[in-house]
Amino acid sequence: MQAADIDGFFADIRQLAAEDYLLLEYYFECSGEPEQAAAHLCSEQSTAQWKRVDVDEDYRPRHAAKVVDLCVESQLKTPSYALDPPVGGPVHACRARIAHPHRNFGPRLPNLISAVLGEGAYFAPGIPIVKLLDIAFPASFLAHFQGPGFGVVGLRELLQVQDRPLLFGVIKPNIGLHPEPFAELAHEAWLGGLDIAKDDEMLADVDWSPLARRAELLGAARRRAEAATGMPKMYLANITDEVDRLVELHDQAVARGANAVMINALPVGLSAVRMLRRHAQVPLVAHFPFIAACSRLPNYGVHSRVFTKLQRLAGFDVVIMPGFGDRMMTSEAEVLENISACLDPGFGDIAPCLPVPGGSDSAATLEAVYRKIGHVDFGFVPGRGVFSHPMGPRGGAASLCQAWQAIQAGVPVAEHARQCPELRAALATFGKPG
Amino acid sequence: MQAADIDGFFADIRQLAAEDYLLLEYYFECSGEPEQAAAHLCSEQSTAQWKRVDVDEDYRPRHAAKVVDLCVESQLKTPSYALDPPVGGPVHACRARIAHPHRNFGPRLPNLISAVLGEGAYFAPGIPIVKLLDIAFPASFLAHFQGPGFGVVGLRELLQVQDRPLLFGVIKPNIGLHPEPFAELAHEAWLGGLDIAKDDEMLADVDWSPLARRAELLGAARRRAEAATGMPKMYLANITDEVDRLVELHDQAVARGANAVMINALPVGLSAVRMLRRHAQVPLVAHFPFIAACSRLPNYGVHSRVFTKLQRLAGFDVVIMPGFGDRMMTSEAEVLENISACLDPGFGDIAPCLPVPGGSDSAATLEAVYRKIGHVDFGFVPGRGVFSHPMGPRGGAASLCQAWQAIQAGVPVAEHARQCPELRAALATFGKPG
Repeated sequence: MQAADIDGFFADIRQLAAEDYLLLEYYFECSGEPEQAAAHLCSEQSTAQWKRVDVDEDYRPRHAAKVVDLCVESQLKTPSYALDPPVGGPVHACRARIAHPHRNFGPRLPNLISAVLGEGAYFAPGIPIVKLLDIAFPASFLAHFQGPGFGVVGLRELLQVQDRPLLFGVIKPNIGLHPEPFAELAHEAWLGGLDIAKDDEMLADVDWSPLARRAELLGAARRRAEAATGMPKMYLANITDEVDRLVELHDQAVARGANAVMINALPVGLSAVRMLRRHAQVPLVAHFPFIAACSRLPNYGVHSRVFTKLQRLAGFDVVIMPGFGDRMMTSEAEVLENISACLDPGFGDIAPCLPVPGGSDSAATLEAVYRKIGHVDFGFVPGRGVFSHPMGPRGGAASLCQAWQAIQAGVPVAEHARQCPELRAALATFGKPG
Repeated sequence: MQAADIDGFFADIRQLAAEDYLLLEYYFECSGEPEQAAAHLCSEQSTAQWKRVDVDEDYRPRHAAKVVDLCVESQLKTPSYALDPPVGGPVHACRARIAHPHRNFGPRLPNLISAVLGEGAYFAPGIPIVKLLDIAFPASFLAHFQGPGFGVVGLRELLQVQDRPLLFGVIKPNIGLHPEPFAELAHEAWLGGLDIAKDDEMLADVDWSPLARRAELLGAARRRAEAATGMPKMYLANITDEVDRLVELHDQAVARGANAVMINALPVGLSAVRMLRRHAQVPLVAHFPFIAACSRLPNYGVHSRVFTKLQRLAGFDVVIMPGFGDRMMTSEAEVLENISACLDPGFGDIAPCLPVPGGSDSAATLEAVYRKIGHVDFGFVPGRGVFSHPMGPRGGAASLCQAWQAIQAGVPVAEHARQCPELRAALATFGKPG
């Protein structure tokens, strides 16, 4: 690109019509001049060749992505990561804010993903290391999406639970157990105080546990638990499957007694979820397989909050995400950013969805999770913390409720455990309150 | 996990029924004992909790993923990549081959992806750094998939081209140009000798270039070019869009004159492609947005050949992939591995698909690409190399044909250029033969 060409990919943000552009924030490392690299990043994701040969025209003013802010943060002796083929140093570590005209593709998730995470982002000349850190949408773009059909408010209404976190539990053993004992485990957990008993994200419509049979038995168990406790309960069925079965499996599961469905968002595809959203009668819950494959490294790939925003846009009412604690290898800041992305009121008319930060939780970790989040609008999702509890799932669920009672009363959880055998057993098994 | 528990996640591969298992190869770095880490990697992706409390049962023999080979390659002072939260060293760098029982989820792409690239892979305790390097499927699993409907043989029949690479060209300018001049550019390129004129992967069904109108004009131009040259030609329309529009857009494009369709594989979702495959009347072509977000780093994420195999399985007839040359930041070995993954005859009854390694190609790079690949079963896909040629797209396409004539005749391309103005102009504009 010639020096004169670079100017066509820079703009003063005050001169742009905000409603026409997505705002993207990229971190990148470049070998050459940062201005040239940033211009390439814009060019490759939009008007790579902006005119015909021998025709006096320029598609950049209307269609080019444009750098609206460029900050050279530092110079590094070598790129953050060794690559193959190798890239030598020094490199400039930069942040660029880019205004990308959504008229180039319209309100379509696959085309949006192609634009901001495609060849343009990862193969811009001179930029071997790049991470999409954040994305922001104007209201005019958001207006094309339905977003969550229930959201936090709707879920709370369905469950008649206000003023506390929603208690999920992943029914275990997750693989191999037949529907009859599987339903019994869920039933016990509901009786113990669980709100939502859920399938593991790896449990599909398989011959040893067909979804229809599972939903029938879990639905019946749920209704028995509702009658016994006087509280609404939820069976969250995993309907992750091939795209052309999603609607059928949703209908099958809901007709038989599931009252929420889970979809592994990226493996199924966000666009397929948007399709299901138009049809869905019950809350849609996202699970996070595959996201970490591109989000873990601080300086390469894509920040997980981008996917959280896209999941909310696609219509998920609940987003299960890697949570706190060593096991989940995610920084506290990143977990909190993802929680904010679910709840942020500044997302057009798209309702907030419920964040569920998960990973090796139990009654022992509830208080720490609550203190970090700072409010009750989240879901708490133990697996073994409920279903490996030494007193069984009923005891495991009860231990969560007891931990919450202590937190509400301002009593240390360990102290409250003295008068609660289930909580005492949970702390003895799963560790001291974190 | 206790020492006694680890054994349940190891097996002698000779004792396993090969047809029941996928074979996975992971690279990983672990802080603790490699055996324990590898057992966790298996446990988390299959039977995380393999028994109920107080029930004498064990789901591992039937449902556990099992380490069949573990090699500790080296000890590193620190992990390959700095992480947040930080992980200290030393770590063991290991390779594990894992047999994963596909009965856990069945022949379903989203569930397969969830199993091998999900929480189990990226959140196994003690394994902060992990990359899925390869995947192999038994014939019994492959038999559930249709694979390519045309494949290399079918494409060659449609185009009546044998014994040479297929010549693609990405019509440029890709964004902003109206259908009328767009069709004219393609027409010129076909007259110059191009086989397949294609939409850029960023060109969708947009108001300034509606797919229906584009397909109509390109279809008419294609038929004129076929009449003029006596050769079949192909217009490859990008139908990347929301999942519930894929079939409709396929039908619309094909009815009006497109005779192949392109889908950005990961942004749309492989399962949606499998759905479209059941319906498709024309070859399906994959483009590669998003894959590099998780495949570029040598030691983290997923190797791109895994996606190449999954794209072939989903039913793509053509896989466009990052090719040779500095621009594409991909090692020669990786490009060749992806080409092999398309053509490998040992993929059950799934037909080979055509590999199209792309990136800043032109008549100047054709010979080098051909020499590296070593045979003619590939597609060559310049963009600017055809559509920014100083003599226009007709000259650009002619320059490719002339370069191929030289290669066929055993004459140096630069020497042949002396008698071919189009080739001479291409070399002058795009560089010397690589």
